[in-house]
Amino acid sequence: MSASEASAAIHAGQLTSEALVSACLERIAQRESEVRAWAWIDPEHALMQARACDSEQPRSRLHGIPVGIKDVIDTFDMPTGYGSPIYDGHRPVADAACVSQIRELGGVILGKTVSTEFATRHPNKTRNPHRLSQTPGGSSSGSAAAVADFMAPLALGTQTSSSVIRPAAYCGVCGYKPTFGLINRAGLKFLSESLDTIGILSRTVEDAAMLASELSGIAVSTPVDSRQKPPRIGLCRTPFWAHADSAVQDSLLTVAGLLEKAGAQISELNLPSEFSRMNEVQIALSAYEFYRALSHERTRHAGQISVSLTRRIAAGGKVTRAGYEAAQAATRDAQHWIARAFERFDLIIAPSAPAEAPDMSSTGEPTFGLMWTLLQLPCMTLPCGVGAAGLPLGVQVVAAHGADTALFDRAVWVERVLSVAGGK
Amino acid sequence: MSASEASAAIHAGQLTSEALVSACLERIAQRESEVRAWAWIDPEHALMQARACDSEQPRSRLHGIPVGIKDVIDTFDMPTGYGSPIYDGHRPVADAACVSQIRELGGVILGKTVSTEFATRHPNKTRNPHRLSQTPGGSSSGSAAAVADFMAPLALGTQTSSSVIRPAAYCGVCGYKPTFGLINRAGLKFLSESLDTIGILSRTVEDAAMLASELSGIAVSTPVDSRQKPPRIGLCRTPFWAHADSAVQDSLLTVAGLLEKAGAQISELNLPSEFSRMNEVQIALSAYEFYRALSHERTRHAGQISVSLTRRIAAGGKVTRAGYEAAQAATRDAQHWIARAFERFDLIIAPSAPAEAPDMSSTGEPTFGLMWTLLQLPCMTLPCGVGAAGLPLGVQVVAAHGADTALFDRAVWVERVLSVAGGK
Repeated sequence: MSASEASAAIHAGQLTSEALVSACLERIAQRESEVRAWAWIDPEHALMQARACDSEQPRSRLHGIPVGIKDVIDTFDMPTGYGSPIYDGHRPVADAACVSQIRELGGVILGKTVSTEFATRHPNKTRNPHRLSQTPGGSSSGSAAAVADFMAPLALGTQTSSSVIRPAAYCGVCGYKPTFGLINRAGLKFLSESLDTIGILSRTVEDAAMLASELSGIAVSTPVDSRQKPPRIGLCRTPFWAHADSAVQDSLLTVAGLLEKAGAQISELNLPSEFSRMNEVQIALSAYEFYRALSHERTRHAGQISVSLTRRIAAGGKVTRAGYEAAQAATRDAQHWIARAFERFDLIIAPSAPAEAPDMSSTGEPTFGLMWTLLQLPCMTLPCGVGAAGLPLGVQVVAAHGADTALFDRAVWVERVLSVAGGK
Repeated sequence: MSASEASAAIHAGQLTSEALVSACLERIAQRESEVRAWAWIDPEHALMQARACDSEQPRSRLHGIPVGIKDVIDTFDMPTGYGSPIYDGHRPVADAACVSQIRELGGVILGKTVSTEFATRHPNKTRNPHRLSQTPGGSSSGSAAAVADFMAPLALGTQTSSSVIRPAAYCGVCGYKPTFGLINRAGLKFLSESLDTIGILSRTVEDAAMLASELSGIAVSTPVDSRQKPPRIGLCRTPFWAHADSAVQDSLLTVAGLLEKAGAQISELNLPSEFSRMNEVQIALSAYEFYRALSHERTRHAGQISVSLTRRIAAGGKVTRAGYEAAQAATRDAQHWIARAFERFDLIIAPSAPAEAPDMSSTGEPTFGLMWTLLQLPCMTLPCGVGAAGLPLGVQVVAAHGADTALFDRAVWVERVLSVAGGK
């Protein structure tokens, strides 16, 4: 059952939050020892919240709906470990803004989902529910796995590079990274403050739209309007096309064909040559910032930082201010270019990840997330079939800066086209 | 002794950090019962840090220099109360990035300076060292008062509206609000994430430049170059000129005259009519954000929030997403306009505050800070004489986005012209 369906049933008096939360907890009890999606969960604490919801009138569409919270987002009543042994058992003094807002809206904070180390790439314990030998992706590993495995209908994640899009694609669910800044970040453990974006993992576009709208106040059609005229779509292979394996390449072209058949105007969007540097620009910009953001940890707890993160932090320390400002300038130029491109397109489609989920030794490559995050654009990955190994693939849909409402409307249309095609 | 002078003496082996910190502590012991600049200070803890500095080679120009930290910025070894009774005695788990960086550079974290409630306008206990019946301004009340009263050569503050510029002007010191984002904000208690900016209180331009450069890596001349050719200056009365009293108006015009006499090209910069809305735009944008950022406090600790802040939070809850996005759009337009204006000017001069410091019932009006903060421009207030009541006045100098290095160079020149004029 999707969050939106559950919400309608709760509002109609046909479902209690307690029953819904119990169903999630049962699934977790069955599967958690294998999937390892949760950094912290206490069934009784979750049920207590659910019963409190059931005792009052619904406050919003989120009322009674359980939400998993990535463990880099503070909760006052649950430990928050930031994916690092340094903060094992840490109890924040207050909820992050988004957590507090979910409670205010009547949502149930189900538990904390596993994050990689400070939301970077170093893997944590979570496994891909579709095949336990493979990574769920990262850094929002637990959020993606929990939603994919029906442990929760909704979860919050965060993205600095590709940390919502990649795990969602690997786990076969929807991942939504809003326009930079849409969901308030007070109480988030910062990695790179000019990129870090709180996002949403869900099983349907409508569910992500519901949570995003409740948190930020953006308008969404309820239910999201799918009767609009088919969109003008830019098929964007990106400068990193060669990094995608043939299944991913075929899948994107197949999706483009299906959307065209359904009425969309498809044309290729070729990015200018400067865009081939955008992944490097993102890496320089974020590294400069996380060298600073993690000053306390790197100076006082260096021994508890992974080797791979230690190396990335050291690289960040070598990015000069001039290098950082050059990265900012290149970003601004690219943002202007892409804003003009969106005069010709309602939506861009692009790969979500270079391949299916690799094994547990990494969380996969962020290749297809870096640029869109740097450009601050709203984007979403939708599941679209499987690759050669039988694991999920995703297609990424990207809209203009600030056009999150339009993104949802268009993504619902894409979701429907893919679902009809998948059903054939 | 300025921080730069102390730094030179420490590097030359003519001064120990222990002696410098002891002098600050003596001044604090004499004056703190009247000025009330400190939320937390432990002399022995400060001296211990100073002795550790003295036992090693200087790590940077900040080595051994004591810095006061506004109490909305996390410190792992000192309580951090965010200016609110809700967080009385709260101990953060980690240092904010900027605090950790100062320690890494060899600086001494002297103690926590008083902030107003969550860095908003509601007054706290600090008094203006120039006249104890008057406010030091806010929200960086303790930082401004401590630096003005020679309790510390440097202190960190934060600005969302006018929280560095206003208290610095009222207390007769330099206040520097960098280009948005220059000093990393990880570990800052957020109020309005798209405006909150960490800034510096100091007694000289050079001192602020030294700390800013060490934290961010921006280039500054060492010592800052004052032999450059005199700047092209835009005299900007701003749309809020009528809010300035006659002493402030006269003072700005007098400064313009002095700078012109010293060789600057002065011309009036008249802002287009849309700029008269900029203060309202700042208020809408920040209110939308702090309604969200303070979700935990307003939902769980409403009884411990002041009446005036409760009213502002409620107003923030009424700002719609559409209103917020309109404020963002108006801001972008104004940023583009001002960027073009800076093709004609090296520097803008404008009032820092509408009048001298009022009494302790408020922290004064943020009128002349809101717009520049919204535009994300680097700005600095420099002391320039006294008003009718004999209390300090300031002049605000503003540079183009990202031109912090140029701001320092120009501000040193202005500081010198004013100092020569003041000496006559």
